[in-house]
Amino acid sequence: MSNRLRVGMVGYKFMGKAHSNAYRSLPMFFPSAPLQPEMSVICGRNEQGVQEAANQFGWSESVTDWRELVKRDDIDLIDINAPSDAHKEIALEAARQGKHLFCEKPLALSLADSREMLQAAEDAGVAHMVGFNYRFSPAVQLAKDLVESGRLGKIYHFRAFFLQDWIMDPSFPLVWRLQKEVAGSGSHGDLGAHLIDLARFLVGEFQEVIGMSETFIKERPLAAEMTGLSAKGSSNADAPKGEVTVDDATLFLARFAGGALGSFEATRFAAGHRSTNSFEINGSLGSVRFDFERMNELEVYFTKDEEDVQGFRRVLATDPAHKYAEAWWPAGHTIGFEHTFTHEMLELVTAISEGRQPSPSFHDGVACQAVLEAVERSVTERRWVTLEEM
Amino acid sequence: MSNRLRVGMVGYKFMGKAHSNAYRSLPMFFPSAPLQPEMSVICGRNEQGVQEAANQFGWSESVTDWRELVKRDDIDLIDINAPSDAHKEIALEAARQGKHLFCEKPLALSLADSREMLQAAEDAGVAHMVGFNYRFSPAVQLAKDLVESGRLGKIYHFRAFFLQDWIMDPSFPLVWRLQKEVAGSGSHGDLGAHLIDLARFLVGEFQEVIGMSETFIKERPLAAEMTGLSAKGSSNADAPKGEVTVDDATLFLARFAGGALGSFEATRFAAGHRSTNSFEINGSLGSVRFDFERMNELEVYFTKDEEDVQGFRRVLATDPAHKYAEAWWPAGHTIGFEHTFTHEMLELVTAISEGRQPSPSFHDGVACQAVLEAVERSVTERRWVTLEEM
Amino acid sequence: MSNRLRVGMVGYKFMGKAHSNAYRSLPMFFPSAPLQPEMSVICGRNEQGVQEAANQFGWSESVTDWRELVKRDDIDLIDINAPSDAHKEIALEAARQGKHLFCEKPLALSLADSREMLQAAEDAGVAHMVGFNYRFSPAVQLAKDLVESGRLGKIYHFRAFFLQDWIMDPSFPLVWRLQKEVAGSGSHGDLGAHLIDLARFLVGEFQEVIGMSETFIKERPLAAEMTGLSAKGSSNADAPKGEVTVDDATLFLARFAGGALGSFEATRFAAGHRSTNSFEINGSLGSVRFDFERMNELEVYFTKDEEDVQGFRRVLATDPAHKYAEAWWPAGHTIGFEHTFTHEMLELVTAISEGRQPSPSFHDGVACQAVLEAVERSVTERRWVTLEEM
Amino acid sequence: MSNRLRVGMVGYKFMGKAHSNAYRSLPMFFPSAPLQPEMSVICGRNEQGVQEAANQFGWSESVTDWRELVKRDDIDLIDINAPSDAHKEIALEAARQGKHLFCEKPLALSLADSREMLQAAEDAGVAHMVGFNYRFSPAVQLAKDLVESGRLGKIYHFRAFFLQDWIMDPSFPLVWRLQKEVAGSGSHGDLGAHLIDLARFLVGEFQEVIGMSETFIKERPLAAEMTGLSAKGSSNADAPKGEVTVDDATLFLARFAGGALGSFEATRFAAGHRSTNSFEINGSLGSVRFDFERMNELEVYFTKDEEDVQGFRRVLATDPAHKYAEAWWPAGHTIGFEHTFTHEMLELVTAISEGRQPSPSFHDGVACQAVLEAVERSVTERRWVTLEEM
Repeated sequence: MSNRLRVGMVGYKFMGKAHSNAYRSLPMFFPSAPLQPEMSVICGRNEQGVQEAANQFGWSESVTDWRELVKRDDIDLIDINAPSDAHKEIALEAARQGKHLFCEKPLALSLADSREMLQAAEDAGVAHMVGFNYRFSPAVQLAKDLVESGRLGKIYHFRAFFLQDWIMDPSFPLVWRLQKEVAGSGSHGDLGAHLIDLARFLVGEFQEVIGMSETFIKERPLAAEMTGLSAKGSSNADAPKGEVTVDDATLFLARFAGGALGSFEATRFAAGHRSTNSFEINGSLGSVRFDFERMNELEVYFTKDEEDVQGFRRVLATDPAHKYAEAWWPAGHTIGFEHTFTHEMLELVTAISEGRQPSPSFHDGVACQAVLEAVERSVTERRWVTLEEM
Repeated sequence: MSNRLRVGMVGYKFMGKAHSNAYRSLPMFFPSAPLQPEMSVICGRNEQGVQEAANQFGWSESVTDWRELVKRDDIDLIDINAPSDAHKEIALEAARQGKHLFCEKPLALSLADSREMLQAAEDAGVAHMVGFNYRFSPAVQLAKDLVESGRLGKIYHFRAFFLQDWIMDPSFPLVWRLQKEVAGSGSHGDLGAHLIDLARFLVGEFQEVIGMSETFIKERPLAAEMTGLSAKGSSNADAPKGEVTVDDATLFLARFAGGALGSFEATRFAAGHRSTNSFEINGSLGSVRFDFERMNELEVYFTKDEEDVQGFRRVLATDPAHKYAEAWWPAGHTIGFEHTFTHEMLELVTAISEGRQPSPSFHDGVACQAVLEAVERSVTERRWVTLEEM
Repeated sequence: MSNRLRVGMVGYKFMGKAHSNAYRSLPMFFPSAPLQPEMSVICGRNEQGVQEAANQFGWSESVTDWRELVKRDDIDLIDINAPSDAHKEIALEAARQGKHLFCEKPLALSLADSREMLQAAEDAGVAHMVGFNYRFSPAVQLAKDLVESGRLGKIYHFRAFFLQDWIMDPSFPLVWRLQKEVAGSGSHGDLGAHLIDLARFLVGEFQEVIGMSETFIKERPLAAEMTGLSAKGSSNADAPKGEVTVDDATLFLARFAGGALGSFEATRFAAGHRSTNSFEINGSLGSVRFDFERMNELEVYFTKDEEDVQGFRRVLATDPAHKYAEAWWPAGHTIGFEHTFTHEMLELVTAISEGRQPSPSFHDGVACQAVLEAVERSVTERRWVTLEEM
Repeated sequence: MSNRLRVGMVGYKFMGKAHSNAYRSLPMFFPSAPLQPEMSVICGRNEQGVQEAANQFGWSESVTDWRELVKRDDIDLIDINAPSDAHKEIALEAARQGKHLFCEKPLALSLADSREMLQAAEDAGVAHMVGFNYRFSPAVQLAKDLVESGRLGKIYHFRAFFLQDWIMDPSFPLVWRLQKEVAGSGSHGDLGAHLIDLARFLVGEFQEVIGMSETFIKERPLAAEMTGLSAKGSSNADAPKGEVTVDDATLFLARFAGGALGSFEATRFAAGHRSTNSFEINGSLGSVRFDFERMNELEVYFTKDEEDVQGFRRVLATDPAHKYAEAWWPAGHTIGFEHTFTHEMLELVTAISEGRQPSPSFHDGVACQAVLEAVERSVTERRWVTLEEM
C-alpha cells in the first residue's frame, strides 16, 4: 500500500469528472508511476448528487461534509475542485491537517487569499499543486522543450488568445460564472488565467501589464436553475434580469522580465470559437504556434532551415519522441483515438440490450472481406472484378 | 446484475488496451447505457504478460487458455483481439458456447473464413460485432447523418486514403504484420479495410473494383524479437533477412451500386503521414471531408449557401448537436482534453513520491493571480502596473 | 530589333487573354529575358470581337484569317489558343511557313493528330511549345527541384486531383466543352491532361494505366448562346436538351516506369471545389504537397528532420531562393499582391470620373496618421491617449 | 482623349513598379473603367535609373525634376511614391498646380504634415487618394460587405497582426527604413499603418489607444550601399555600426467609437512570417478572418447556421459574386494564376534564344495525349493498357 495515494476530492461537476477520469487513467496508461491514486472519498453538498457521482466516476465512498473529510487519517491528498469561492477555506483546513493539496485554478478569488493558501501549505510542509492542465498537452511540452533547450533562441514575442462564444446570446442566463462574488472574474480569470500560466511556463515572469475590459451584455435573465457551464438561456423575454458583474472580454499587453513583449486576449464573444486556446512564440531562432482545438499539433519554424524549404512545420506530437505520447497509442494515433472504442462499446451493449445486431456486425466484416479479396483478385488477374463474383 | 455484461477478452496488446480502456470509460461517460460491461477475464498465451495486463487494465482475472474461457458460464461476451489468424477458431467455438461476439477487424484472413464465422454466429443466435472503430468518431457520425438525411444529395464521389510511414526505413524488421500467413495482407487489409468499411457505412455497397499493389522493400532483417507495431529496425546491416510477403501499398478504383465512383489508397510508404486516415464525399448538394489526424473536425460544404459565402466549413464535432459529444466535455473541448489531466496527475504523484513540489505549485497559482490582479488594477486605474507593485 | 520576337496569336478568349497578359508582363518583370515578345497581330473569326480584344489586350493589329497570318514575314511565332479542334490545321500550316509554335493544351484532339503536329514542327526545324502552364508556378518548380536534386529520394507515390464544380447544376447548358467533337474529352482532357503533364514533369514516364469514366448528367439544355466557360444554365426547364458526349469525371491508376504508383482523378462534380488542382509526392526521403488554390505554397516533409520536430512545412515560395520569385515582390508578398493596386487604380479613376473623392482619400491618410501618433504618444507617456486629443 | 488620365509618377522602386503594373493592367482587365490612365512621365533623381525604369515599366518619358513635372500642362495626376520624407513637399506643390494626387502611405511623417497636405488638396479642389492597397483585395472587400450589410451584426472585436521577419538577422544593415528621420517610424508606420487603415475601413473610427514599442536590435552595420527592402547584411562583423532609431515592434490596444475592442501588433521579428497581414473580426452574428498570405481566401462564420454544421467557411473570393473577381479569371482560378503564363513565356523566349526546344515541347504534348488515350482505351476495353501499345 505504500505506493498508494489516497485521494479525497471536494467537487464533482465538470472538473470533478475530469479529475476522476485522470485518476482512473493513470494506472492504466502510466503503470510505472511511482504512486498510484486511490479514489477513496468524493465530497459534495448535495447528498444524492455526490453519491451518483461516486458511482459513476468510481469513488469508494461519498460524503457531504468536507470538514470531516479533511480530518480523516485514511486520506493523503485533498483535491479541491469545488466552486472557486470555497477553495481557500478548504485548502487552509486541509493543510492544517497535513494533507497534500491539489487545487483547481483559480487558486483563490484574490491575490491575498491565494498568498494565504500558499503560506498555509508551506507552513504545513505538504505538497501543493494548482490545476493549470493545459501545460500537460504533449504539444505544449514540446514547445516548452524547444524554448528551454534554446532551440528557439531569445524570445521576442508571446501572443495568446483564449476565444469562446458560449454566452454571446443575450438571452443566455446569469449563471454563477457571470457573477463576480462567486467567480471572481469573467473571461479574465477563467480563460486569461490559463494564458498567463502558459506564458509564465514558456516565457517566464511578467514585468508589467496594461489592460482593457468590457462587458458587452450588461444584463441577463436570471437563471431558473443553475445548471453549470451548459445552462441554456430562458426563452421567456420577460424573465427578470440581473446585472452581469464580470468581464465578457479582457485584453492586455505585457512586458516580460526577459525582454519579450506579450499580447493577451480572453473573450467569450468571439463567434465561431468554441474554445480556441492558442498561442504563438517568436524567438530569434524560431517560432512555435499552438491551438488547443488541434491539441495534438505544434507548428514549429526554424530560421536555420535551408533557404528554399523554410516554413512552419505541422508536428503531430504523437511520436515516441514526444513527452507522454508513448504511453498512449502508436504514432499518428492522436489522443482521442481511444474514444472511438468507447462509442463502439456503447453501440455493442445497446444492441445486445435491445435484442438487435450491433452495427457493424459480422455481416459488415464479411462484406469488407469480400471487397478486399475482390481487389486482390483484380490485382492478380489484372482485370475488373465485380462483387457479384465473390 | 441484469444490466451487466460479463466480458471475457482474448488478446492484450494494442487492441486489448484500447478495448479495456473503452470498457472502463463506458460507465463513466455513458452511465445510462442499458448494459454496463464487467471486466471479468482477460486471456493470453503468456501467463506473466496477461497477468500484468489484467492488473494494468483492471480485469478481475487472467487466464491463458481461451478454450476454457469460452466455456465459462460467468461470461456473456467474448472479445477477440488476438492476432488475426486466431480469430476464426475462437469465434467459432465461442459462438458454439452461445457467447456474444466482438471481434477485431479483420474478421478473418479470408472471405471464406469470415463467412464461416458469420454463419456460426447466426446459427448460435448470438450478437456479433466487428471492430471498425473509426465509424464511431463524432465527426464521422456527422458525415453519416448528412448523407443519410439527404443533405449532401446524390453521391458522386468517394475518395479515401490511409497513409502511414512507419515501415519506410528498409532496416525496419520483418514483423508479423509483414508476413502474409499471419497478417493476411499488408496495407490493404490493415488500412484499406477501414476505408472500405467507411465507404460502405457512408456510401453503400460496392459493385466492382480494380486495383494495383506493390511491395517496395522486398526483403527485411528478421526481427530478433517480435515487439509488435513499434518494433525498431536492427542496426546490424548484416542481420539475416527474410521476404516481405504482404503489400506495402494497394490502390484501387471502385464503382458503387448507387452510381458513385470511388478511389482508394492504403500505403505505409507516405513519408510524413503518421496515420492519415482521410476521406472526402462529393454529392449533388454538398461535400464533406475528414482526416483522422484532426478527428474532432469535419469539413462541410453546401451548394445552397449564399453565393458570396460558399466554402468548406470547419465544423468542430464537439457541440451538443453532435452524437456522443455531450457525454464528454463542454463544446470546443475536443476529445483528448481529458488527458491533460492524466498527465497532470502523473506530475502530482511523481512529485510527491520524489519529495519535491509539483509544477505548477501554489507558487504558480499565486503568481498567476498577481498578474490577473495587476491587469485588473491597470484597467481600473488606466495605467501600466508593474508586478513589483503587487 | 534582333531581341524581339514578333507574335501572331490565334484565339482571343480565356487563354488569349492569359497569353496577352503574359506577353505584356514579361518585359516588365523579366527585363533581362534574352528575347522580348512584340504583340504584333491577334487573329479571330469575329472581326469586331477580335478588334476589341486587340484594343483591350494591346495588340498592334487584328485580323480574321489565320491562313494569311501564318504566311506573314513580320511574324516569328504563332501562338495557337483557338478551340482545340482547330489546333492541328493551324500548327501544320504555321510550321510549314517556318514559324515557331506555341500551342495551348490539348495539343490536338487525338494522339495521331498530335504526333502529326510534332512531326511537322520537327520537319520545319522550328521551336514548339505546348501550354502546360501549371509547371511554371514557383511552388511547382520547387517541387521539381526537390525531386531532381534527390532530396525526396526514390519516388513511391504520386497522387493528383483536379476537382471542379462548375457544371454540377443539371440546368447548366450544353456548352462546347461538353461536346466530344469540339472538346475531344471532358474532365479527362481538360483537367486530367494537366495532372498527367505534372506527373511526367515531376515523376517521369508512365508505364501502364487503367481508368474509369462517368457522365453523371447525360442530357443538358441546349445553350441559346455559346458564351464560353462562364455560360449560365437556362432557367427554362422546357428548353430542348442535347446529349452530353464527354466524361464528367475520369479516374485512373498508373504505374510509372521508375516504379512509382500513381492515382489520378479529374472531375467537374466535386461540390465546393472551384478549381482544386493538387498533387502529393511521397519519396523515400520526403514528401511534397501542392494545391493550386494556394499556389504560393508548397508543403514539404523530410524524413531526416530531427525526431521531435518532424512535420510538413508550409513553404511560401516567394523567397529569393525560389525560381521566378525575385522578379516579383519582396518575400512574403505572394503573387497576386500586385492586383490590389490595379483595383486601387480602378477606384481612383472611377472617383475622378464621377467627381467624388476616392476612398481612401487624404482624409484617411490623416486619420491613420492620427492613430499612429496617438499610439506613439501613449508609448512615450505610458498612458491611454484619446483620438480627441490629437 | 477625354477619357484619358495622364499620369506623372514620382518614384520608381518597389511601389513605382507596383503602380506601373497597375496602370498597365487596368485597361486590360477593366476595359470599361470610365477613365484610363496614360503612363506619361516617370520621375526620379537618378537619371539612368529612372530611364531604365521608364523602359522597363512602359512610361513614355522619364525626367529627374519633380518640380518641373508637377507644372506640366499635359499631366492630370501626380502619383507620389518617392521616399516618405519627400511626400509632403511634392503633394503641396502638385496641389497648387491643380493636379490630382495619388500618394503612397504613409501620407507624411507627421500628423501635422499630413493635415497640411489634406488642406492643400482641399484648397486646390483636386482629387486625393492615399495608397492603402490592402483594402482592395477581393476578400477584404467581401469582409467589408459583410460588415456593412449587417451580416456580422454588432462588432465586438477586431484583432490584427502584421508579422514579418526580414530584419531578424542582427547583421542585416541599417537601411533607410530603420532610420527615423527618413522612414518616420519602423514596424508601426510601415506595417501598423495598414492595420489601422483596415480597422477604420472595416470597423470605424478609433476612440482611444495605448501601446508598447521595442527595438530589439539597437545597433546595426552601416549599409555599404542602400539597396532598398532586400538589402542583405554585411558579412563583415567589424563593419562600423549605427543606431537603429525606429521600433522593431509596436503593439497597442484600442477602443473603437462603436464599442468594439481592438488589438494590434506590428513586428519585423516574427520568425517564419514573411509577411503575415491578418485580421479577425467578431460580431454578434458572425466572424471573419483574413490573412494576406492567402489573399484569395476569407474565412467566414455565421451564428445562424444550423446547429450541427456551424464552422468557419473557407471562402475563395474568386466567384463572380465577389468584387473585381469576374474581371480576372474563372472561379477558382486565384489571382496569380496569370503569372504561370508569364513564366511560361520566359521559358519560351529563352529557349528560342538559346536555340533549344522549350519545355514542355510538342513532345510533351504528344506524351500527354498518349496517356490520355491509353486511359480512354482502358476505360473502353476495361483492362490495363500499357503506354507501349500506344
